[in-house]
Amino acid sequence: MNDLRIDGPRLWDSLMELARIGATDKGGVKRLALTDLDRQGRDLVVGWARAEGLAITVDAIGNVFMRREGANPELPPVVTGSHIDTQPTGGKFDGNYGVLAGLEVVRTLNQHGVRTEAPIEVAFWTNEEGSRFVPVMMGSGVFCGAFSLETAYAARDVDGKSVGEELERIGYRGPQTPGDHPIGAYFETHIEQGPVLEDADNVIGVVPAVMGLSWYDCTVTGMEAHAGPTPMGLRRDALQVATTIMQETVAIANRYPPYGRGTVGMVQVFPNSRNVIPGQVKFSIDLRNVTDELLNTMHGEIEAFIERTRRETGLAIELERVSYYPPCPFHPDCVGAVRAATEKLGYSTMDVVSGAGHDAIYVARLAPAGMIFVPCKDGISHNEIEDAQPAHLEAGCNVLLHAMLERAGVAGGNTSASGNTPAAAEIVA
Amino acid sequence: MNDLRIDGPRLWDSLMELARIGATDKGGVKRLALTDLDRQGRDLVVGWARAEGLAITVDAIGNVFMRREGANPELPPVVTGSHIDTQPTGGKFDGNYGVLAGLEVVRTLNQHGVRTEAPIEVAFWTNEEGSRFVPVMMGSGVFCGAFSLETAYAARDVDGKSVGEELERIGYRGPQTPGDHPIGAYFETHIEQGPVLEDADNVIGVVPAVMGLSWYDCTVTGMEAHAGPTPMGLRRDALQVATTIMQETVAIANRYPPYGRGTVGMVQVFPNSRNVIPGQVKFSIDLRNVTDELLNTMHGEIEAFIERTRRETGLAIELERVSYYPPCPFHPDCVGAVRAATEKLGYSTMDVVSGAGHDAIYVARLAPAGMIFVPCKDGISHNEIEDAQPAHLEAGCNVLLHAMLERAGVAGGNTSASGNTPAAAEIVA
Repeated sequence: MNDLRIDGPRLWDSLMELARIGATDKGGVKRLALTDLDRQGRDLVVGWARAEGLAITVDAIGNVFMRREGANPELPPVVTGSHIDTQPTGGKFDGNYGVLAGLEVVRTLNQHGVRTEAPIEVAFWTNEEGSRFVPVMMGSGVFCGAFSLETAYAARDVDGKSVGEELERIGYRGPQTPGDHPIGAYFETHIEQGPVLEDADNVIGVVPAVMGLSWYDCTVTGMEAHAGPTPMGLRRDALQVATTIMQETVAIANRYPPYGRGTVGMVQVFPNSRNVIPGQVKFSIDLRNVTDELLNTMHGEIEAFIERTRRETGLAIELERVSYYPPCPFHPDCVGAVRAATEKLGYSTMDVVSGAGHDAIYVARLAPAGMIFVPCKDGISHNEIEDAQPAHLEAGCNVLLHAMLERAGVAGGNTSASGNTPAAAEIVA
Repeated sequence: MNDLRIDGPRLWDSLMELARIGATDKGGVKRLALTDLDRQGRDLVVGWARAEGLAITVDAIGNVFMRREGANPELPPVVTGSHIDTQPTGGKFDGNYGVLAGLEVVRTLNQHGVRTEAPIEVAFWTNEEGSRFVPVMMGSGVFCGAFSLETAYAARDVDGKSVGEELERIGYRGPQTPGDHPIGAYFETHIEQGPVLEDADNVIGVVPAVMGLSWYDCTVTGMEAHAGPTPMGLRRDALQVATTIMQETVAIANRYPPYGRGTVGMVQVFPNSRNVIPGQVKFSIDLRNVTDELLNTMHGEIEAFIERTRRETGLAIELERVSYYPPCPFHPDCVGAVRAATEKLGYSTMDVVSGAGHDAIYVARLAPAGMIFVPCKDGISHNEIEDAQPAHLEAGCNVLLHAMLERAGVAGGNTSASGNTPAAAEIVA
């Protein structure tokens, strides 16, 4: 069983074939959730699953579960998956890799006739990207009860079409109640969407957690005035005060390494005229870290800095928290299974905390979950030039295979990382 | 002659009457250059001038000169003036005060039968504001040869109407060649359009010079990346680097007091998304000071800072100078005449360098020129709430009267500030 490996070229070919549906001129993919192209993609993947003998279940929000029965059907399945919808200027790998890696695991098990104790399932979740319909991570969010099916159904795109209508139209409004589907453990393979693995020249990222984030809108109000006639000492320049807060945002993140993040991404200056001292500046603040405690500390520091700046400058400064997602530590069993599989397979590895959201965050509310990252070129994702190396995708899929086998158990054998006696696989076909 | 004073209420009444043409609901004035309202305003002022016996000359760009003959018609006239066009959301005083203060000087001389040696003229210059047609300060600019009459005629508003057509239509395309009009000395009274006089509680600003300005576009290019997955150490955050340059802009101005000015008024962030590290930031830099030497020093410092920042951060930073107006020192004779008149009249006073452009800058290329500032409420101008106190407007007009008398000379008398024998005015009527 330790020698079992997935078929890298087969995985790559499937990725390339799926990427043809919605392919863009620049080499990317535009396959928005619940469009005709999404249906074509879903049909292709479901067709491949059927060819492997998997049983298909669709729930009411369009999440699809493709099941390979286990020796013990009473056991909750070990599930892997991700999403196949893309950003408008998306790439070939974000999401799609996680789904097709799961399919490749199944193909490998079938090819080698490996029977698992627990069932194996490959899932894809509806509308992870949130590009056409908000909220993002819609399918997994409904599945775990983060928001209701009705809320999701009512979401409309810019043309006024609703999720409910579009699910019906493409034939993926299934009978199963979302969440009414046991999961024994959940794994998700994904391109890192960041530069850490590539920078450190490592192949596998073991993901102990997904960062939490705190989003703010900050507004500094001074006094608009002419740039020439107004002496420096009589100015109430909103931008100059805002720049100190922008710099402090980064300084705070740097004080809480290695996972502290601080970003000002959006800035609006009023009146935004070359020869007028800005009277008001609005900007976003994005703080992230890996534990509630660290994130709260960072929150306290930005608040304190703003209070001090308010006092020292006399300018009005508002700080409004507009979003908060708590950090999501993954389950030790799943993280351990990924780490053990990586070590067993001998890939270079490091821990990489996810800075972006994934369906695994929501699934983790219901079941033990873990993630596997592989490098992507220059850390670029959500872009048509998104790229990844076949060897890395193959490695991540091998880790997924062995982590799943460890959690599912091989019928008649024992591949547990904690087990001392790796057993031969039971050959069933 | 030293006891001669203008009639403050008469000046105020004329200001309020002119302000009715194009009056806005918020108490301001919208009387854009070469519109029907501009014609009505011009006709009103010219009518008042005719009633005082002044001779009217109009040049080909619509500048109007209203002449009160001197005892020696061969002497070049001592001219005062400004403009009567306004911003779209303009006030009652910007420009209009300078023209009507000149008219009030003439009325006072007529009322008291004072005959001057040199002729006195009141001028208003076409399209100072530049709101409808660019370039700004068009009439005085053509007059002094800063750009050609053809360039000015060809300027079009958003509806495609040209300056040449509109001048013809409103009947103010005159026969005189612009610039072909001698000026012995030029004075312009104006609200300060800044907060300096009000802040210091002074009534009269003696204006030794108009600041020069250097305008730049600065572009910082880093690398756009996701705010979550990208660790602080691997970022190339264009905004963070840009904020240091924004702060240095202000720091440079503070190093060259009292007239140094540094302003970043306009900022664009790309892609300007909350969870994306900015890949590029473009912003304006506005540096001003009162001498070429100081402005060049400031220019050198921003260039050096950017070079250092480029080296230290590795980010691409472009700095492009997009405009340069040299500082304009006013003529010692005219500045001296304003200072002497202010002291003689006993008004509280200080030097105030103009940070904004005025017709006097262009006129100064052809003739000795000087300006007189009076406070405006909160330093606000180019705004419908622009306001000024009647007592201040009266004081500025008295200073104008005595400065003009000093330069024009009283027929049969001597009011020169350098003269030791103030003489009685010759009463002519």
